[in-house]
Amino acid sequence: MKQFVVIGCGRFGSSVAENLYKLGHDVLAIDGHEETVQNISDKVTHAVQVDATDEHALRSLGLRNFDVAVITIGSHIQSSIMATLIVKELGVKYVVAKAQSELHAKVLYKIGADRVVFPERDMGMRVAHNLVATNILDYIELAPEYSIMEITTIDEWHEKTLLDLNIRSRYGINIMAIKHGNHINVSPTANDVVHRGDVLVVIGHNNDLKRLQK
Amino acid sequence: MKQFVVIGCGRFGSSVAENLYKLGHDVLAIDGHEETVQNISDKVTHAVQVDATDEHALRSLGLRNFDVAVITIGSHIQSSIMATLIVKELGVKYVVAKAQSELHAKVLYKIGADRVVFPERDMGMRVAHNLVATNILDYIELAPEYSIMEITTIDEWHEKTLLDLNIRSRYGINIMAIKHGNHINVSPTANDVVHRGDVLVVIGHNNDLKRLQK
Ligand SMILES: Nc1ncnc2c1ncn2[C@@H]1O[C@H](COP(=O)(O)OP(=O)(O)OP(=O)(O)O)[C@@H](O)[C@H]1O
Ligand SMILES: Nc1ncnc2c1ncn2[C@@H]1O[C@H](COP(=O)(O)OP(=O)(O)OP(=O)(O)O)[C@@H](O)[C@H]1O
Ligand SMILES: [Ca+2]
Ligand SMILES: [Ca+2]
Ligand SMILES: [Ca+2]
Ligand SMILES: [Ca+2]
Repeated sequence: MKQFVVIGCGRFGSSVAENLYKLGHDVLAIDGHEETVQNISDKVTHAVQVDATDEHALRSLGLRNFDVAVITIGSHIQSSIMATLIVKELGVKYVVAKAQSELHAKVLYKIGADRVVFPERDMGMRVAHNLVATNILDYIELAPEYSIMEITTIDEWHEKTLLDLNIRSRYGINIMAIKHGNHINVSPTANDVVHRGDVLVVIGHNNDLKRLQK
Repeated sequence: MKQFVVIGCGRFGSSVAENLYKLGHDVLAIDGHEETVQNISDKVTHAVQVDATDEHALRSLGLRNFDVAVITIGSHIQSSIMATLIVKELGVKYVVAKAQSELHAKVLYKIGADRVVFPERDMGMRVAHNLVATNILDYIELAPEYSIMEITTIDEWHEKTLLDLNIRSRYGINIMAIKHGNHINVSPTANDVVHRGDVLVVIGHNNDLKRLQK
């Protein structure tokens, strides 16, 4: 079990804090806003109302004993930078911070953040990709040129086996799973049949995946 | 090519708009804030400063001819609901809206949103999962019980073939890809060797995947 402190409990921060706690870890949630602290208090180990730019307050919470700090203050860049600097100086081992922009991220790295995340930007990219191709249900970038996609199946594929469809040699992509309602087959073999409504989880080069998109 | 209108160009909305435009689509970006409109204007087809709760203004932009509207107004729930209602009534075919909470989402669906997204909540869950296991680099939930994960390889796996490691029968999970620096092998075979620093992309039941996490 690790000790996490989440600073800022907006939509992103509260989700991080609640999920870490659900996964069985110790989570101290900090926010400057009283109501926000009350709302999260029964979903984490401890929740306190503290201004994260107040070094003395953070020190007296014993933050130096924590393994990971996640700074999710969003709109006020200066506070996010100050809070990151303080937890780093207090000796928290691993510091993750949310950034608004590339410039903000650069500053966060300079002052010692170990990892910078862009939740809205990353999710915006994912949603955009999902929207342009109606047969793509979900999308994840694996490497600059490679992705995993969930695609709906087209009429001509239904009731055929993977061997018949021969998607690997026709398109150069691999089928990793077949979703059929609530059931998911994560080791599809050549004899497995694709039914109407099935969703395929595929992996491949973006150029090859493009040819599958309608 | 489809016609998209993105209403609200905060961090999430601007990322959606810019990515749709990069993917080759027509994008009208709308925001109530002048500076925000200026910042995005050269990254989309058109950008206009309009209050999205002003029905007449939206109508005069010809919104009824758009294929998809994405409403990303975040903090002000009432404006998000009004804007969604207006674009739906103007006849936009497919409406995606960003929600703050489950209650907000329920209202958005009731008034006709075709899809509701929770970017901060979803990304918070992903980041939490990535943080708890240091060998997990990325994580995506495929179905309630199944996930895809990127994991770093451990010493005892290095210079062995997938056949030697026998991860499929030992853990019940499948290896979908091997990342080696900038190269990615998306059709790994039994004879492929795992090297130091390689990352495996695996798919499986969450219980099986848990056994791989350190
Ligand atoms: N100096 C501070 N000390 C403590 N908490 C703070 C401080 N500044 C901001 N916060 C808290 O951080 C949280 C996130 O800030 P804000 O809402 O500005 O960011 P956001 O990026 O819009 O959040 P999200 O998108 O995750 O909802 C809020 O709950 C806010 O009360
Ligand atoms: N009535 C409105 N008409 C037009 N634009 C609006 C309206 N209300 C809010 N917006 C714009 O929507 C954008 C997103 O709103 P806001 O920043 O409150 O949400 P957010 O969820 O914190 O955003 P994000 O997390 O994506 O940065 C802002 O750029 C804001 O100017
Ligand atoms: Ca917030
Ligand atoms: Ca905000
Ligand atoms: Ca914003
Ligand atoms: Ca946000």
